[in-house]
This record gives sequence, structure tokens and C-alpha cells, in this order.
Amino acid sequence: MSARRGAADGDSLDPVDWDVLKSTFHDAVEQAIDHLRTIRDQPVWRQTPEEVKRRLTAALPRNPEPLDALLSVFAQDMLPFATGNVHPRFFGWVHGSGNPAGALGEMLAAFMNCNVGGRDHVAVYVERQVLKWCREIFAYPQTSSGILTSGTSMGTVIALAAARAARADVDVQKLGMAASPRRLVGYASSEAHSAIAKAFELLGFGRDALRLVPVDAEFRLSLPLLTEMIGADRARGYHPIVVVASAGTVNTGAIDDLDGAAALCREQRLWLHVDAAFGGLAVLTPEFRTQLGGIAEADSIAFDFHKWLHVPYDAGCVLVKDEAAHRAAFSHRRDYLAPAERGLAGGAPWFCDYGPELSRGFRALKIWFTIKAHGIDRLAEGIARNCRQAQLLGRAVASSDDLELLAPVSLNIVCFRYRAGDLGEAELARLNEAIVAELQLDGIAAPSTTRIRGRLAIRVALTNHRTTMEDLGILVSAVRRLGKAPLAPSAPGKRPRVLEPEQR
Amino acid sequence: MSARRGAADGDSLDPVDWDVLKSTFHDAVEQAIDHLRTIRDQPVWRQTPEEVKRRLTAALPRNPEPLDALLSVFAQDMLPFATGNVHPRFFGWVHGSGNPAGALGEMLAAFMNCNVGGRDHVAVYVERQVLKWCREIFAYPQTSSGILTSGTSMGTVIALAAARAARADVDVQKLGMAASPRRLVGYASSEAHSAIAKAFELLGFGRDALRLVPVDAEFRLSLPLLTEMIGADRARGYHPIVVVASAGTVNTGAIDDLDGAAALCREQRLWLHVDAAFGGLAVLTPEFRTQLGGIAEADSIAFDFHKWLHVPYDAGCVLVKDEAAHRAAFSHRRDYLAPAERGLAGGAPWFCDYGPELSRGFRALKIWFTIKAHGIDRLAEGIARNCRQAQLLGRAVASSDDLELLAPVSLNIVCFRYRAGDLGEAELARLNEAIVAELQLDGIAAPSTTRIRGRLAIRVALTNHRTTMEDLGILVSAVRRLGKAPLAPSAPGKRPRVLEPEQR
Repeated sequence: MSARRGAADGDSLDPVDWDVLKSTFHDAVEQAIDHLRTIRDQPVWRQTPEEVKRRLTAALPRNPEPLDALLSVFAQDMLPFATGNVHPRFFGWVHGSGNPAGALGEMLAAFMNCNVGGRDHVAVYVERQVLKWCREIFAYPQTSSGILTSGTSMGTVIALAAARAARADVDVQKLGMAASPRRLVGYASSEAHSAIAKAFELLGFGRDALRLVPVDAEFRLSLPLLTEMIGADRARGYHPIVVVASAGTVNTGAIDDLDGAAALCREQRLWLHVDAAFGGLAVLTPEFRTQLGGIAEADSIAFDFHKWLHVPYDAGCVLVKDEAAHRAAFSHRRDYLAPAERGLAGGAPWFCDYGPELSRGFRALKIWFTIKAHGIDRLAEGIARNCRQAQLLGRAVASSDDLELLAPVSLNIVCFRYRAGDLGEAELARLNEAIVAELQLDGIAAPSTTRIRGRLAIRVALTNHRTTMEDLGILVSAVRRLGKAPLAPSAPGKRPRVLEPEQR
Repeated sequence: MSARRGAADGDSLDPVDWDVLKSTFHDAVEQAIDHLRTIRDQPVWRQTPEEVKRRLTAALPRNPEPLDALLSVFAQDMLPFATGNVHPRFFGWVHGSGNPAGALGEMLAAFMNCNVGGRDHVAVYVERQVLKWCREIFAYPQTSSGILTSGTSMGTVIALAAARAARADVDVQKLGMAASPRRLVGYASSEAHSAIAKAFELLGFGRDALRLVPVDAEFRLSLPLLTEMIGADRARGYHPIVVVASAGTVNTGAIDDLDGAAALCREQRLWLHVDAAFGGLAVLTPEFRTQLGGIAEADSIAFDFHKWLHVPYDAGCVLVKDEAAHRAAFSHRRDYLAPAERGLAGGAPWFCDYGPELSRGFRALKIWFTIKAHGIDRLAEGIARNCRQAQLLGRAVASSDDLELLAPVSLNIVCFRYRAGDLGEAELARLNEAIVAELQLDGIAAPSTTRIRGRLAIRVALTNHRTTMEDLGILVSAVRRLGKAPLAPSAPGKRPRVLEPEQR
């Protein structure tokens, strides 16, 4: 053929000088690891300065900039202003703390640049390896299917789509939800994560189709009330298809009665999905092995690697016992994605037949590196340690006059508040909210807040391999001092400096 | 509080010796960059050896392994067996080729370990910066909303959920698809990507609710037929809500008449979504600026960074003109995710209110590094170069006796076949399928296959910044030689070696 070259033929995005590229990477490695090494000496969280925010509203850059200059911008404008969850005193929401082996995997995956939507290449086999390990963790059958996801939210969407494919009266993939002669409904406790309601919305069930079952005194789904609600729905012509049980609720860490839920679902012919986002992995510890063992009875499980296994964000997983239902929900394909017996288009089954994504990164590699580098026993010890820390913190709170425990400590979450004698509920809420904001703004610690039966709680979630009991001591001291201090949250610029510099 | 330490208190996942960790990272950088530097000398694709696959079925590891040993396993068992899309002669499907600046961003993001679901930290502002750039690329209003996704498949799901929130007669989020008095339907061409049908399935429309509109001779959606189909659906009581136009179809690169589709949608009061997965970015080139300018008229756009902008997998985006509809589709929240005015729980709006995910990695950083390091003009030149290469390849094919062009070259995709004089359709299909498999197995080049009006095509998609005209010459020569050679695809172990060693 006429191999006339265009003017710019051969002008790739690769560097002119590979050694300069290497040098920038080596500098980046030094900076990133030094940052991690000294994380304890830094504030948990620093507000992103206004001038940084302003710089991040620049116009689309037309011209190249040297990579080392960009690394400097990163070091100055970005690295100090992270979410904070790498720090030992980050206790907010449920965030994992990361680990350097996982970061190594992520860098190598970015260089390899695999698309794990399908086809025959090693990334597919690494993802299958990781999924095999997941089945082992939950004592799940090796005939089950699974796929890595961005997190439990997407895992829940996929699991519920599989449940729908398995249990609806009609071919919902083809005909849609409106074709179902009976309205499809599901159940979860009132403490279940909002991701479940979001999944019900996305899939077209509607969030009203998720019936919220009241909880018992320990915030666990009430099975007797669930049974009643299923019966009432059936009597009114609805079609119950799924129950979602929580293996660790986000508010308090409560673990639903999984064995009981499994028995009920078998009896009622319902799909049992377990939201194991973080708590499910406590099945790896001797303390929770029995209580969480019922996960193995579930029809599907969704959980995260980026929480209690500390894989860098984002990384989750869904496992589905009925492989055929899972595949039926997602295996729509066209000619240009036809599989082949030989070559790159081999490698069946393709992951794109088990989820909504056709392009998928090599997420498995950072998980592989994390699990291989630490071994599952050591990762499990970290989980057990966090649960012990939660128990100790809970006891310390319960035995204090000025602190009040607002929920039993079931797993790794402690919900409490500072309690000044003469304040009413509304004032206590404002005070504790202000305490949490001050803790964050001063960079001392980062718990989050929630409401427990209407009361605003300081919520400490321990999914942090760097946290020590000393860190929790610093937190409690700071809460007390902030609780006693005259806070002025309405004038943040003038708020009193109640903390000694050495504690920042 | 009683700071009694558990036995393992303080035993984090951080290394005992930080210098050893650094040393492993430096080794990894050397290996990964050397691999990239020598990519042209390597086969495009190597089948993963059986013993590697076997090793990747190991049991869950209980004990730690040294990180440098894991790096060796990676270098030996994984790096050589990648998808192949980093290589200059990878032409399969539509895969981007990656770039080292993006890999740097990914590594740094993994160390920072931000969760960009929400809250107030710098990763949120970097993602907003990237989204601002996206709006500039497509001349989209800065009042529009957007979110980074794993790719166009998820972007399409999000866009269609927003369309549903905006155009359904009822509150579908709350009440579900079954509550709609009229069945919701949408339209795309018969050449539209299967991701659209998959999104219709997932969202509960059902794939039958996606009406496939016939295409014209150049594989573009027929607007007259679309108008007829909308009218017919309305007459039968359906509720048309959305049209999906393709800015570059995956089969042939055909670009639908976007201006015409926009006018039709305005007239018919329908939501126009543009599937701009890869082709939309050609709007950055002078050659396609006019033809693709109509994207700015769309109600939503989904596209990928990991294709023609070469950001490492995975990275996509969705933009939605009606921010309120976008937010309405996803903003279900609970107490434990309550925003705050001050501190870490500030930073509103949160990205989790614009998509199904609550946990989200710092995907924006690899995009920021890629665009800043190269500048958008240079990235656009790469897109223009690929389109010129496609034109040249198309002309070379069209002027050959033994090659047949199966579709017009609209953008960057060339669909052709090797044509031996006396073979029937079925034999030609088998022969060309075998040619593609052999090209891949021999590591010479990796096109994929598709069917064009029933005929099996060798499909060359040029989304590769490393490809030169010489690479396309090597491809064409190899196709010819393989076409003439006596292939024995039924006995892969014994297939004849038709290629000289220097071409592997």
C-alpha cells in the first residue's frame, strides 16, 4: 500500500527522553512514600485553600507542560488536601486507609492498561483469581459467579438485577418492569444503607418498592415483622422477590440475623442478598466467624476491598450463587463483540456479561498485590484489632459521666455524644455537630456524625490499620475539651483556639 | 480513658523498612517504563501460558510475601500477557493506548486514596476541573452537571436515568417504572452500541423499549424513519422520551446527523443523548468540528477518556444539561451522609448525588495529568492523524484486487476483508476470521472482527497514538500472506508458520 506518512506520523505521546520520564517517576515515588511515612505528624484533614480551588478552575490547557512541573503542582496543591482517610485518626463514614502494596499494583495496572471487559489476556485470569479468593473468604460455592465493581453500591445494583432476572414472572430484560403482572417488591431494615434504595430507584423498582422493616433494640432487622410484611404484600397482589440483610449496618455496625434471614428466604422462596460492604469481612476473625457465617447462605453478596481490606479506592465485588441468573441479567452482545475460539477474542466467559460495563480497568491487580503482600491472616488481625478498639472505646464512653453511648457496639462503630448536664436535645445536637466540625478543622481527628433514634451522634468507625488506642485517647480528650469550651460555630473565622499546638 | 493496648496495637500494614519499599517501587518504575519503551519490539499479544493460568488458581494466601518477590511474579507472569492495546499494531475494538503521564496520576491517586463520593477535599475540585474542561471540549454550558464514570456504558445508564427523571409522567425514582401510565420508549439506530440496549435493560425499560431505527447507506440513523416510528409509538399509546444518536458508531465509525437529530428532538420534545464514546472527541479536530458540533445541542453526552485521549483504563464521563434532572435521579441520601456547612462533610454538591456510586476513586487525577502533560492540541492532533491513517488505509484497500472495503471510512474505522476470487460468503467469513486469529496468535497485529450487512469484516479501529503508516503496511502485507496461505484453523497446534520471524 501507499505508505505516505502524514506530517505528524510517528509523533506518539511517548516521551522524547525516557530517562527524564523515569526520573520524574522516581521523584514521585520518593514524595508519595515520604508523605505516607510521615502521615502521623500531619493534620488528619486540611481544608483546600481558596487559591488552590481557584487554580482548579483554569481553562482547558492547549499546550503541554513538563511532567516534573505537574508533579510539583500535585505536591503543593493536591497531596496535602486529601480526604484524610490515610491518617490514623480518620474515623469518618467507613473509609479504608490504603496500603502501599495496593498502590504498587495500581501503578503497574495503569502501565499495562488492560481492558478487562473481556477477551483473552492475563488480567482476566487475575480477576478470576481474586474472585476465587472471595468465594473462599465467604465459604461460597466455586460454581458461583462474580465480578469486581467500583464498590458495594454497584455490586448491589448487579445483585438486584440478577435477583430480578431470576425471580420476576416475565423476561424483564426484554420486556421491562412494566410488563410484570405483579409489582416487584423487596425488603431491608430501616437501618439498611441508602445504596439499596438507590439501586431500587435505578433498576426501575422505585424506592417505595423497598419495604423498610423496623429493627429491634440492637438495630437488627426484625424477622417476625419481615414475615408479616411479606404476607401483607402478597395478600395485596405484590410480588416479593428479595430480602437484603446487612452484615454490619453503616450507622451502628449492627449485624442482622443472617441464619434467620436465610431460613426465612428459603421458606418464602425469596432471594437473599447480603450487604456485606465492610462488616462481612469480619467473618475472617474468630470473634465473628459464627455470627457472619450465614453469609454463605445468601444468593448474592456485595462488599468492598477499599474499606476493611485497605485496597486503594475504588474496589468492590459482587458474588452471585446462580451464575445463569447473573449472566442472563447482563449478557446482551452484538457482532462487534463476538467471541472467538482462538486468539484475543477468546477467553470466555467475558466479564462484560456479568455487569453493565464493557470497558473495565485492571482493578484486580491492586487487590492481588494487597492480599498477597499482607496475607489474609494479617488483614484479618487488623479487622479484629479495630473491633477490640471499638469495644474499648465503647466501654470508656459508657463509664464516663460526660459522654453518652447512643448505640450498642456490635462491630467496629461507636456512636456517642458529649453530654453537658443542662442542655436539651437540640442544643446537644448543635454542640456535638460543632465538636465534630472543630475536630476536623483543627486536624486532630475526623469522625463523622449520624442520628441514632433522632439524636445526633459523634460516629467513630474503625476501619483503619494505623489507629492505636493512643489515637482514640487523643480523640476522647479533644471531644471533652471542645465540649467544655465556649464554641462559636456561627463565626468560624473567630472560633476560639481551644487546643494546644502539640495536639494538632 | 483506659488506653490498654491490644497485643497487636500499632501493627499497621505499613512497611517496617520504608527504604526497602522505595527500592521496590523504583525497580517497578524501571521495569514498567522499559517495557513501554520497547513495546514496538514485542509481539502485540501473547496468549497467557497454561502454567500461568494454573498458578492463578491458587488458594487464598494466608501469609505475607515480600513485595519484591511479588513484583517478580508480576514481571514474569503478567506484564507480557496484557490485552495488547499499548502496542502500535493493536487495532481491535476501540481501545486507547495509554500514556505514562496518566500512569503517574494513577499511582499518586492510589497513594492519596481519596474517596470522591463526596465531602470537602481536593480530589472533588480536581474532578470539577476535569468536568469543566469536558464542557469546553463540547461547547457545553457551564451550568450543566457531570460526573466521571468507568466508561460510556455507565455514562449511558446515568444519562438515561436523568432523561427518565425529566420526562416520565410520574416520579419513577419513588414509584417505579410500573407506575407510569404509558410505557416509556426510546430510539437509537440499528448500528448503535449494545451498551444502550444494556442500559435499557438495567433501568427496567426493557430492551424492547429501545426501538432500533434503520440506517442509511452510510450507516447513519434515518431521521425520516425515526419520525415515523415516534409517531407510530405515540399512536399506540407509548411514551417516547429519548433518542440516542451516535457520534461515531462502533462498527464503522458512522456519525449520525446530530444537528438533524437535535432539531427533531426539540420539535418532538424528546431528550437527545449522544453516545460520543470515542468519536465525539474528534470535535477537537478541524476536519470534524462542524460535523460533530451538534453534540452541544444534546441533553446529555457520554464519552471515554480511556479511548482516544489514552487515559489509562478506566475513565469515562457523562454530562447532563439539566442539572436538576440529573440530581433528581440520584440524590437519595440518609443521615449518615448528611452534609455539613463546615469541615470535611462540606463541599456540596457531592458527586454521589449524580450517580449510583457512593464510594468513588480519584479517577480525575490520571485525566488531569494526561491533559496537562500533553495539552489538548497535541491530543487532538493524534485523533486527526488516526483519521488520516484510516482514510489512507481505506483507499489502499479500495484500490486492491484482493481486498474489499465493506463500509465507507467515516472516521477512524476501516472494515474490509481479504477476497479470494472463488470463495463463497461462508468460506470468506471463515477465511477472514482465521486471518484475524492468526494475526493475533502470531503477535503481528490485533484487529478485531465484526459483521457488516452480514459479511464478516476485518475491523481496524485506529485509536492508537503509536501507530504509523508503516504499521498499517505490515498489517496489510500480513493479511495478504495469510489470505493466500493454506490455513488450518481446526488444528491450531499444527498451523503452518506463514510468517517470517523478523515480522513477529
